[in-house]
Amino acid sequence: MTAETGKPADGPVVHDEVITREPFPASRKTYVPGVIHPDIRVPMREILLSPTPSHLPGGQTTINPPVTVYDTSGPYTDPDVAINPRRGLPAVRLPWILRRGDVEELAAPSSEYGRRRLADRDLDAVRFPVVRRPLRAKAGRRVTQMHYAKKGIVTPEMEFIAIRENQRREGLTGLAGGNGRNHLAGRIHVGQPWGAAIPKVVTPEFVRDEVARGRAFIPSNINHPEIEPMIIGRNFLVKINANLGNSAVSSSIEEEVEKMVWAIRWGADTVMDLSTGVHIHETREWIIRNSPVPIGTVPIYQALEKVDGRPSELTWEVFRDTLIEQAEQGVDYFTIHAALRLRDVPLTVRRLSGIVSRGGSIHAKWMLAHHRENFAFEHWDEICEIMAAYDVGFSIGDGLRPGSIADANDEAQFSELKTQGDLTRRAWDHDVQVMNEGPGHVPMHLIQDNMARQLEWCHEAPFYTLGPLTTDIAPGYDHITSAVGAAMIGWYGCAMLCYVTPKEHLGLPNRKDVRDGVIAYKIAAHAADLAKGHPGAQYRDDALSKARFEFRWGDQFNLSLDPQTALAAHDETMPSEGAKVAHFCSMCGPKFCAMEISRQVRDDAAAQGVVDAKDIEEGMRRKSAEFREAGGEIYQVR
Amino acid sequence: MTAETGKPADGPVVHDEVITREPFPASRKTYVPGVIHPDIRVPMREILLSPTPSHLPGGQTTINPPVTVYDTSGPYTDPDVAINPRRGLPAVRLPWILRRGDVEELAAPSSEYGRRRLADRDLDAVRFPVVRRPLRAKAGRRVTQMHYAKKGIVTPEMEFIAIRENQRREGLTGLAGGNGRNHLAGRIHVGQPWGAAIPKVVTPEFVRDEVARGRAFIPSNINHPEIEPMIIGRNFLVKINANLGNSAVSSSIEEEVEKMVWAIRWGADTVMDLSTGVHIHETREWIIRNSPVPIGTVPIYQALEKVDGRPSELTWEVFRDTLIEQAEQGVDYFTIHAALRLRDVPLTVRRLSGIVSRGGSIHAKWMLAHHRENFAFEHWDEICEIMAAYDVGFSIGDGLRPGSIADANDEAQFSELKTQGDLTRRAWDHDVQVMNEGPGHVPMHLIQDNMARQLEWCHEAPFYTLGPLTTDIAPGYDHITSAVGAAMIGWYGCAMLCYVTPKEHLGLPNRKDVRDGVIAYKIAAHAADLAKGHPGAQYRDDALSKARFEFRWGDQFNLSLDPQTALAAHDETMPSEGAKVAHFCSMCGPKFCAMEISRQVRDDAAAQGVVDAKDIEEGMRRKSAEFREAGGEIYQVR
Repeated sequence: MTAETGKPADGPVVHDEVITREPFPASRKTYVPGVIHPDIRVPMREILLSPTPSHLPGGQTTINPPVTVYDTSGPYTDPDVAINPRRGLPAVRLPWILRRGDVEELAAPSSEYGRRRLADRDLDAVRFPVVRRPLRAKAGRRVTQMHYAKKGIVTPEMEFIAIRENQRREGLTGLAGGNGRNHLAGRIHVGQPWGAAIPKVVTPEFVRDEVARGRAFIPSNINHPEIEPMIIGRNFLVKINANLGNSAVSSSIEEEVEKMVWAIRWGADTVMDLSTGVHIHETREWIIRNSPVPIGTVPIYQALEKVDGRPSELTWEVFRDTLIEQAEQGVDYFTIHAALRLRDVPLTVRRLSGIVSRGGSIHAKWMLAHHRENFAFEHWDEICEIMAAYDVGFSIGDGLRPGSIADANDEAQFSELKTQGDLTRRAWDHDVQVMNEGPGHVPMHLIQDNMARQLEWCHEAPFYTLGPLTTDIAPGYDHITSAVGAAMIGWYGCAMLCYVTPKEHLGLPNRKDVRDGVIAYKIAAHAADLAKGHPGAQYRDDALSKARFEFRWGDQFNLSLDPQTALAAHDETMPSEGAKVAHFCSMCGPKFCAMEISRQVRDDAAAQGVVDAKDIEEGMRRKSAEFREAGGEIYQVR
Repeated sequence: MTAETGKPADGPVVHDEVITREPFPASRKTYVPGVIHPDIRVPMREILLSPTPSHLPGGQTTINPPVTVYDTSGPYTDPDVAINPRRGLPAVRLPWILRRGDVEELAAPSSEYGRRRLADRDLDAVRFPVVRRPLRAKAGRRVTQMHYAKKGIVTPEMEFIAIRENQRREGLTGLAGGNGRNHLAGRIHVGQPWGAAIPKVVTPEFVRDEVARGRAFIPSNINHPEIEPMIIGRNFLVKINANLGNSAVSSSIEEEVEKMVWAIRWGADTVMDLSTGVHIHETREWIIRNSPVPIGTVPIYQALEKVDGRPSELTWEVFRDTLIEQAEQGVDYFTIHAALRLRDVPLTVRRLSGIVSRGGSIHAKWMLAHHRENFAFEHWDEICEIMAAYDVGFSIGDGLRPGSIADANDEAQFSELKTQGDLTRRAWDHDVQVMNEGPGHVPMHLIQDNMARQLEWCHEAPFYTLGPLTTDIAPGYDHITSAVGAAMIGWYGCAMLCYVTPKEHLGLPNRKDVRDGVIAYKIAAHAADLAKGHPGAQYRDDALSKARFEFRWGDQFNLSLDPQTALAAHDETMPSEGAKVAHFCSMCGPKFCAMEISRQVRDDAAAQGVVDAKDIEEGMRRKSAEFREAGGEIYQVR
């Protein structure tokens, strides 16, 4: 690599060893087959737990069943799968797509730019080695999941998602909700779903119905057969997106592929490729061919590169060709800032921080230069037709999202949101899937208003927000300022949360920043699922808390979102292996461990067979005497 | 230091250079004098800003006035103050205390333990070098701020706090609230205070009234004259606490003093000393004498040490002596788990994680061993009398706070909360100041219920919560899981947020952990102030966002909660000095900076004198033509 440009000097060198493949500790990848579609194999991660040792004389150890968790990491964490980034992942969806009989293979890319890049021999060094022929809908056909859903067809993608969303929770006891208890003895809280209708068990038919109604979105371009299908919708698990991409300042193709693998390892459900370099087309191909998660892009970035960075030189034709180029590579959703209309631009002039969306500012500049309506708005129906031919979904951009607390929930923002709603309906008329992008920077008390308006004006299409950041005063910690807002808007109904890393506003994220951002957002998404009362959410908390209370340190680490970091934090003060079975940690030390004392209280009660409060009180009365007799020795450090 | 014990081998070595004293960049310490009490000097930090350069031909640069921020860092960040940790900080409050004529200086500590430690020559090596005589109320007198407040007396502490809370916002324009704009052009949001009554400007009389009503608490032991008074109450800025302390496993006196300085540097408003080692008494003296912020403790920890770690051996006499010992050292508030009653213990047996409060588990164990009511509950009035003689405030402990999501808001927790309310009233009858401790682990949708019950049952006494953590599944990141809950409960009305570090559940925090925890909680507290509509909150956000939008990078860093980290994050990709004036950063690169394009849009409009949307539209129409003529060149990378 040359230090100057961040680009590879002799073409991309993507070695297997560059890709992180280490499986998670005590975990095994399992695959659940389909019923309607027996050829689908839904990957999940099983975390194996150690038994609970008995502390009572003659007591038995208790088995703790494995905990199954949603797994975004793809084949990379399956040691049985051979990975070769130069070949890409297996095209698992290809048979499903071909079976539908509504696509055709093209002899050459239909975008002019795509053909030009393919013909350019100079690019061979950076090109993804396997050249594939793009698929496109046969003339007059729509190949979107929404189209099938409206026709009543349960696709393999839908069944895959139903199985995946359930995380095998059908097999768990005590998930009936209410103030019941699960088999871990945890009280199961009734959530506050704010009108969401999350089913106890997700059926393929439920998935189909949600997609047909536009309440959920399955990003699944027919040219991205490598994905493990996932869904974005308020009646499913809350999802997160990680943004990746070089900029003119740094990065290489090689790094981008590994960054994608790194982001999905920690939990990114989709990845947006925001690259803006000279090999943007080739970088994207490498990423898509190796990505088991849907990829989103902002096509206007590349369109701008094609006109040498001059927004006023942008044309509908350049933009259109870019959409087709990327659709035929397999991008699963496009952020398009079509809802930013000319009439709204003046509303931003008195803002504290104007327009902070890159795409938004480009469109605004074009509109000013030409004093014409946004070309993406004007060509909306034509764009929809392109999207429908590949099943690319919309992420309708919020070019006027607030870039500061002061600008939150202003006229500019909400005027655009209304237009997002209008465009949503029009896209649905073309059977094109949609989600709507949202803010940004919003103080806590104004967050729910964003969600409520989006639900109303955008007809319950999935909402996809960037944070929001709940204060502007902590650059360097914006994964935290925004995780607060993300958790809240996720609870209120936001379907996908776009991560923010600690480097937001300051620079490009490194590996640690990406992990910090992803984990902060997994926390936000899971906290939201818990608060909504998602029937699959609390189980993992209970399993981890039970492990914690029983001093099963390894299980506590392994059940956590980031076992490596949890283990390292523990080992920093107590690195010995013995500390992994100690009934205390360095925080309180052996004499002050509340959990250890508390566990003793329970064991004492259990030994006497007391089960309810009255019995326990009686038992305690007796136990009190025994205690005194035994000398009152209670700190039995094992 | 010996590696084994973590204790200094040859007594504490507290060198000046161990203490962090570096002032914040571009900041100066200012002191605002009192009016009623002219001898008070309220410290604040002024952040100096650079001017906004004009981008218009012939335009003028605009001065940006300094931003004043609340400053918890004490004299340590004032380069004009000489610091000697072996002498302690100046006793600024001593004249105020003595002027009231209601205290007497004791010839010797009145606690038996205090006298014994003083007499022990072996402790000379670790003892704080200056031996001071404790103060105590004269017989029959109550020396609490609540006592004075009820009598209508505005103490110097109260005036100090009024000035401090205002952060000189009286001088700012446009702070009238409503949808007005301040002079930074930011829209000022109307908050949602959930019934809080935050005044536009805090007067000394308002402080007095809030303290008299028990709605606010000024931790200010007469034996801690070194503090810069602060207040905890829902009608004031939300505060944060940092816990420090060694454990049996690690740490030294030297480290504890610097940890305190480090924690207040980043914004801790109070510090709890949770040390549990053999020199707990001496460590505490070092910390108090050097602490400009109130110090809280959990006296039961030390009482337990005195009976060799056997809870059943605890006695009221040992506990009482410990309270007096610590009160005479200057501890400002005591966590006492008196509200955990015998009848509630059985309620914890079926919990997923039992009792997770250290103090709570000790009291529970004692109650079980003796089958007797909690001695702290039974001796409440006597405890109150002790507290009133020194103005030690209560932080009534929540020994039954939930330790997992499953256990949130259960019968055990709420039964204790009701008792906390009863004890609050009884403390107020003795003019003793009170706050109530709260959870813990709570899913988002159950947080507000905690706040609402506490306000009702505890008669609006200040609430002081640990987080709450909104999920259990992220050990290693619990500063984030809990910052979410802390921000929310702060918004709902919680007065002080006890920080959680990334090491929670895993080990003792190091310096980085302490900073991470404090900053996460400053974010939570500030986000809460914003959402409540605190009239002093949004100004800093607006100033920072304006700096960001104007590419005043240095100002953006300096206005942030952690300038060092913000600068380092920026420099990681763009270390050159030139990058500090660049109109882009490495995130988007020069061609894609939305803010730069957006700023150009505004400048164009301004150049034409357009001010409202209609004018701007007309201006744009004209500008559009000019643009085309000028060749449409817009990326003027400077």
